[in-house]
Amino acid sequence: MNLVAALHGVRDVRLETRELPELGERDVLVEVRTVGVCGSDVHYYEHGRIGEFVVESPLVLGHEVSGVVADRGRRAVRHRVGQRVALEPGIPCGRCTECRAGRYNLCGDVRFFATPPIDGAFARYVAVHEDFAFALPDELSDDAGALLEPLAVGISACRKGGVGLGDRVLVTGAGPIGNLALQVARAAGATTLAIADLNVDRLARASEVGATETIDLNERRLGPDDGPFDVLLECTGSESLAGDAILALRPAGVAVLVGMGPGLEARLPVAALQSRELTFVGTFRYANAYPTAIALAAARRVELDGLVDARFPLEQADHALRAAREDPSLLKIVVDVAERSPRG
Amino acid sequence: MNLVAALHGVRDVRLETRELPELGERDVLVEVRTVGVCGSDVHYYEHGRIGEFVVESPLVLGHEVSGVVADRGRRAVRHRVGQRVALEPGIPCGRCTECRAGRYNLCGDVRFFATPPIDGAFARYVAVHEDFAFALPDELSDDAGALLEPLAVGISACRKGGVGLGDRVLVTGAGPIGNLALQVARAAGATTLAIADLNVDRLARASEVGATETIDLNERRLGPDDGPFDVLLECTGSESLAGDAILALRPAGVAVLVGMGPGLEARLPVAALQSRELTFVGTFRYANAYPTAIALAAARRVELDGLVDARFPLEQADHALRAAREDPSLLKIVVDVAERSPRG
Amino acid sequence: MNLVAALHGVRDVRLETRELPELGERDVLVEVRTVGVCGSDVHYYEHGRIGEFVVESPLVLGHEVSGVVADRGRRAVRHRVGQRVALEPGIPCGRCTECRAGRYNLCGDVRFFATPPIDGAFARYVAVHEDFAFALPDELSDDAGALLEPLAVGISACRKGGVGLGDRVLVTGAGPIGNLALQVARAAGATTLAIADLNVDRLARASEVGATETIDLNERRLGPDDGPFDVLLECTGSESLAGDAILALRPAGVAVLVGMGPGLEARLPVAALQSRELTFVGTFRYANAYPTAIALAAARRVELDGLVDARFPLEQADHALRAAREDPSLLKIVVDVAERSPRG
Amino acid sequence: MNLVAALHGVRDVRLETRELPELGERDVLVEVRTVGVCGSDVHYYEHGRIGEFVVESPLVLGHEVSGVVADRGRRAVRHRVGQRVALEPGIPCGRCTECRAGRYNLCGDVRFFATPPIDGAFARYVAVHEDFAFALPDELSDDAGALLEPLAVGISACRKGGVGLGDRVLVTGAGPIGNLALQVARAAGATTLAIADLNVDRLARASEVGATETIDLNERRLGPDDGPFDVLLECTGSESLAGDAILALRPAGVAVLVGMGPGLEARLPVAALQSRELTFVGTFRYANAYPTAIALAAARRVELDGLVDARFPLEQADHALRAAREDPSLLKIVVDVAERSPRG
Repeated sequence: MNLVAALHGVRDVRLETRELPELGERDVLVEVRTVGVCGSDVHYYEHGRIGEFVVESPLVLGHEVSGVVADRGRRAVRHRVGQRVALEPGIPCGRCTECRAGRYNLCGDVRFFATPPIDGAFARYVAVHEDFAFALPDELSDDAGALLEPLAVGISACRKGGVGLGDRVLVTGAGPIGNLALQVARAAGATTLAIADLNVDRLARASEVGATETIDLNERRLGPDDGPFDVLLECTGSESLAGDAILALRPAGVAVLVGMGPGLEARLPVAALQSRELTFVGTFRYANAYPTAIALAAARRVELDGLVDARFPLEQADHALRAAREDPSLLKIVVDVAERSPRG
Repeated sequence: MNLVAALHGVRDVRLETRELPELGERDVLVEVRTVGVCGSDVHYYEHGRIGEFVVESPLVLGHEVSGVVADRGRRAVRHRVGQRVALEPGIPCGRCTECRAGRYNLCGDVRFFATPPIDGAFARYVAVHEDFAFALPDELSDDAGALLEPLAVGISACRKGGVGLGDRVLVTGAGPIGNLALQVARAAGATTLAIADLNVDRLARASEVGATETIDLNERRLGPDDGPFDVLLECTGSESLAGDAILALRPAGVAVLVGMGPGLEARLPVAALQSRELTFVGTFRYANAYPTAIALAAARRVELDGLVDARFPLEQADHALRAAREDPSLLKIVVDVAERSPRG
Repeated sequence: MNLVAALHGVRDVRLETRELPELGERDVLVEVRTVGVCGSDVHYYEHGRIGEFVVESPLVLGHEVSGVVADRGRRAVRHRVGQRVALEPGIPCGRCTECRAGRYNLCGDVRFFATPPIDGAFARYVAVHEDFAFALPDELSDDAGALLEPLAVGISACRKGGVGLGDRVLVTGAGPIGNLALQVARAAGATTLAIADLNVDRLARASEVGATETIDLNERRLGPDDGPFDVLLECTGSESLAGDAILALRPAGVAVLVGMGPGLEARLPVAALQSRELTFVGTFRYANAYPTAIALAAARRVELDGLVDARFPLEQADHALRAAREDPSLLKIVVDVAERSPRG
Repeated sequence: MNLVAALHGVRDVRLETRELPELGERDVLVEVRTVGVCGSDVHYYEHGRIGEFVVESPLVLGHEVSGVVADRGRRAVRHRVGQRVALEPGIPCGRCTECRAGRYNLCGDVRFFATPPIDGAFARYVAVHEDFAFALPDELSDDAGALLEPLAVGISACRKGGVGLGDRVLVTGAGPIGNLALQVARAAGATTLAIADLNVDRLARASEVGATETIDLNERRLGPDDGPFDVLLECTGSESLAGDAILALRPAGVAVLVGMGPGLEARLPVAALQSRELTFVGTFRYANAYPTAIALAAARRVELDGLVDARFPLEQADHALRAAREDPSLLKIVVDVAERSPRG
C-alpha cells in the first residue's frame, strides 16, 4: 500500500493510504526519497487553485522528486530496480505539434505532477514513464536530485535569454528560482551577475553562489542607471520591479519573465522595447533540461544541497507547506520521504 | 543653391533657399526625385516633437528618398554621376558596439534624416555617404525607390518575427507599414495572411496585395478564437488591440511590436506570454535591409507603386503633410521633387 | 486482402497478395491512391541495398504516398473514414533524445516506409499512426499529395540553409529534388535562383517553375566567378560539382548537402570553409515539414502536379521503377494505385 | 624613433630602426609590452608566405599585443595616455556588407597586423584605431593582454559550435588554441571536455585547465566509439584526425574546423554529415570577441598566464620564432618588448 499526503481543501492536508499506482508497460515504480516544496505547492495549499487549475478532488502535491526504482512495467528496460533516479514531473504526449517541434513543455496533453487532476509526489511511491526517470550519478544526493527540477527552470530561463560567455546578467528575486537561475547564468559564462531582492539574507545567499553584485531593493529602485545588462532574469512576478529592471537592459537585450504575477496583464515599458529592440520572453517549465541539469550538478558547476534549509518527514508535509509559506528565512524546504522509512 | 521645405514650428513649413550641402570625401550629392511622407513626418509637423526628439531649429523633414547622383566627393567611387539611387536615411558610426555587432540601427551616434537636428530630404539636393546610396535597378520607379524605406521596416519586422514558409501571420493595422509588412510576410512564405483594421478601404487594399483574411475591427474584437497565428506584426501602436491580438498567437508564437503608441508603458498579456512561452520583440528602423528590399521589389515579390495615392511638388510639401494627416483614404503620399524641376 | 508489389531481389519485383495490415489502436488504414517513385526506390531495385540497409526479405517499396482513410484503430479519432490524406512515411518513437528535441527525423527507432525491414506503399492498403496522416485539402490532387514527400525534403533543405528574403540561391541538380528545392527557395523569398545540371530539359523545367538562371554543365564548370550566392542546395551528390559550387558562396554562406554520393567521404574545399566561414550542413529526410508542405502547395506557392511525367498502375510497379532508372526525360513517375481499382 | 624586428626573407629577421608610425586622428600610439608568438608568425618565418599572402617586402610579425597608450591622435578620446591596453589586431572598414552585418572579420578591406603588407607588433611602438585598443583591467597582466588574441579565437570557435550548458565537447589538438578553446568551452558550461593530441605533455597541460578526459593519439585513433560529443573543436588542421573525430559526434552535432591544414581541400566524412545532419563550420579570426575575452579573463574563468613558457626580448625576436618552431614543449612563447626597455 501507498501512503500519501493529499490536499483536501485550503490548508487541509491529510495523510491517506492508497493503492499502489498501476504501472504502464514502460513505467517504473519509484520509492520516493526527497520532494522539494515549490511555491506552486504552497499556492495550492493556500488558495486551492492556481489560475484555471482548481483542486476539485483530493490532490497529492509535490513535483520536485528523487527516489529509487522499486519495480518496472512489463517493457520498461531503461533502469534496473534499485537505481536512484530524479523524475521529470511532466509527461507529454510525444505526438502533437508542440511535442514534435521539441517544445514538449507546451504539449496540451501533458500530465504534470501536482497539477489538478494529476497527483504529485508527497507519497511513498509514484509511477512514471521510464523515459522521464533520470539515473542519478553518485555525485548527487537525494536532495540534489529533487532540486534538479527548479534547476531545470533556471536552465530554461538562461536558454531563453541566450545567456552566454561574458554576459552581464541581472536577476530579480533571490529565492530558490532566482538563486538557481543566477547559478546557471554563471555556469553559462556570464561574468557580471547582479541580483536584486528585498530580502537581504537571500541576497547574501546569492553572493555565496556567485553573485558579483547585490542590490537591496529596500534602499533603492532599479533603473536606467544600472547595467547595462545583456539579460534580465525576472523571478519575482512583480510588475513594477520588472518594469524598472527592463530599463537597465542594453540595446537588443532580453528580459526573461520567469516569475508569475497575480494578473493576466502587466504594464511593461513598451517604448524601451521598441526603441532599443528588446525582447521579452516567457518561460513555462522546461524541455530537454534534465540531462543538462544533471551534468551541471555532477560537475559541481551549481550548488544544490546548500539551498536546503529545512526538512520534514512525509507525515508532516503540511508543516513543510506552512513553513514555506511563513518563514522566508528558509530558502528551500524538502519533504524527506525516506526519513523514518526503513528500507531493505 | 538648394531649395528645401523646412519645419519652423507646429504646422509651419516654409520654403527656403540654402547652400548646397558640403560633400564629405566619400559622400554623393543626390538630386532628389521622390520623398515619401511618413507618419513620423506628420507627427513632427503636428507636434513639433516625437518623444525626446524636439524640433528646436528649422528642420527639413522627409526620409523616404530616391534621387539621382549629381556629384561625388573626392574619394566616392561607388556610383557614377547620373546613377538613380535610393537612400538609406540613417548613417551609423560604423565603430561602436552596436555597429560592430551588425545592429547599426541601434548605433547611439546614428545620423538619421529628418530627426532633429539632422535635416531630411524635402529638398532639391541632399548629401549622403555613398555606401548608404543604393543603385536602383531599372525595374524600380522613383516612387518605388522612395518606398523602399517603409518596405525595409516591413522586412525588419518579418525578420524579428522569424516569418517563414507556411506561417500564419496576423497583421494589425492596414496603413502603409501594415500593408508592406503583410506583403513581405507573403514574400517570406507565409500562407495565412490575416489583417485587421477599422478602415475597410485599407483592408480592401491589403486584399489586393495578398491578404487571405480581413478583419473589420468595427465589427468585432480579436481574441483567442482567432488564429492560431505563428506571428503577429502589430502596426498600430494600440495597446488594447495588441493585447487582443497577442491572445491569438500559438504557443511559442512571436509578437513584433512595430507600431508605436503614445505612452512609455503598455498593458500587455503577460500571463499568456508566460504560459505559452510567447516572445514580444520591438523593432527600431532596420539594418541590412535595403539590398533585400531592392531584390524583392525588382523581382516583383512586393508591389510598391500601387500604394501611392497622391503626389505634391516640393513647393507644396506642407500640403502633402496636411493631406497625410487629414485624409486616411490616401494610403501613401509622396513629395515629387522632380516635378516642375527641369533637369538636363 | 491486400495487393502489394514486393522487391524480392535485384530487379525482381513481384505482385503478391497479403493480409491487410493490422491496425494499432491509433492507426488508420489507408487505401493508397498515388505513390511517387523516388531515387531511393530505384536504388534498392537496382542494387538491393542502400549503404547499410540491405533488402534481406521481400520489401514493398514506395514512401511518397497519398490515399484515403478506409478504417481506423480503436482510439484513432483524428480523421474520419473517407478523408483524403498524405502520409508522412517515417514514424519516430516520440520519446528519445532526438524526438524530444524536435529532431525526430534522427530518431534511432524511426520506422520508415520502404526501408528494410519496413514495408512501403506499393500496395492497395497501408496502415499508419493517425498523427502521421495529414488531411489533404481539396486544392491538392492525389498526385500532389504523394509529392508532398519530396517537397518536404526541399523544405528541410531550405530551412537548413536559412533561405530567406532576397537570397541568392544556387541549386545543383535539376531532378525532382532540385526542382522542388528551388521552388521552395523561391517561396521563402529567394530572388536569385540559379540552377545547374547536365540535363538541359530539366533546366528548362526549372525555368518554368522560377529559376532565374540556368547553368548548363556541359558547357562550363561552376566556380568562384559565379555568384556570389548566399546558399547552395546541392542535390546531385557529386563531389566535384559540390566542390565547384561551394566556391561560388559568399562569406558566411551555407552549403546544404542534400544529394547523397557513393562514398563515405568526399573531398571538400575546406580552405574556403575556413577563410570565408562557410557552413556545410547535411539533411536527412525532414521533421515538422508536412504541414508546411501542405500550406505551400494549397496556396499555390509551389507547383507539384506539373512534375509528373508518367504513371503506371500498381500491377506495373516494376515498369515504373525501370522507367525511372532508364529515362531521364521523365522528371517524376508515379504509381497510380487508384487506377483500375474500382472502389465502392 | 621606433625599433622593430622585420622579416626580410625565410628565417631572416632583422632589427631595424624606423620612424614612429603616423597617427590617424582617432589612432593611439601604443608602447608595446608583450607580443605572443603565433603559429602564423612561425609559418611566415619558415616559408615567407601563408597561402596567397606572400612576404614581398620586410614585414614586422606579431599580432598578439598588449601595451600602454603613449600618444593619441587629434580626435582620439577613448583612452588616456598611460592606459594599459590590448590590441585587436584587425581593423575592418566598418562600411561594407560584412561589416554592416556584424561579421567584420570577413571584411575584404581589413588591415590585419603581420599579414602582408601590414606590419605587426614586434616593435617598440605601434599605432591603432582607438576603438580596437581595449583597456586592460588590473586583474590582467601584460602577458594575459597579449593572449587575449588566441583566447578570442577560442571564443569564436565555441560560438560557432554553439557550445553551451552541459555540452560534451571534444577538442583535437592541445596547443595554445586547443587549450584555450577547451577553457572557453568549459567557461560556456560544457561539462564533458575531452582533448586529443600526440603530445602527452600538452594533454597534461589541458588537464590542468579543465579537461575531463585526455586521449593520447599515439595509443589509438578516435572514432565512432568515442563520445557521443555535441561539438568538435578541431584545432590541428589534420584531415585524417578531423575525419575520425567527426564520427564521434552525436546526431545534429557540430564540427568547428579551427586548425588550418596544408591543402585547399580535405576528405571529410560526408555520409555522416548527411545521415546525422551534422554541421561543419569554419572560423576565421573573430569578431566582437575582445570584450568577452577580457570579461572571462578578469573573472578568472580562463587561465592565460600559465600558458607562457618562455619569453624573449624584442632584440631576440628571431630566437622566439625559432624556439616556437623547434620546441613543442613550450606551449606559448612571448616577446617581452618591455624587457630592457626602461620607460619613464
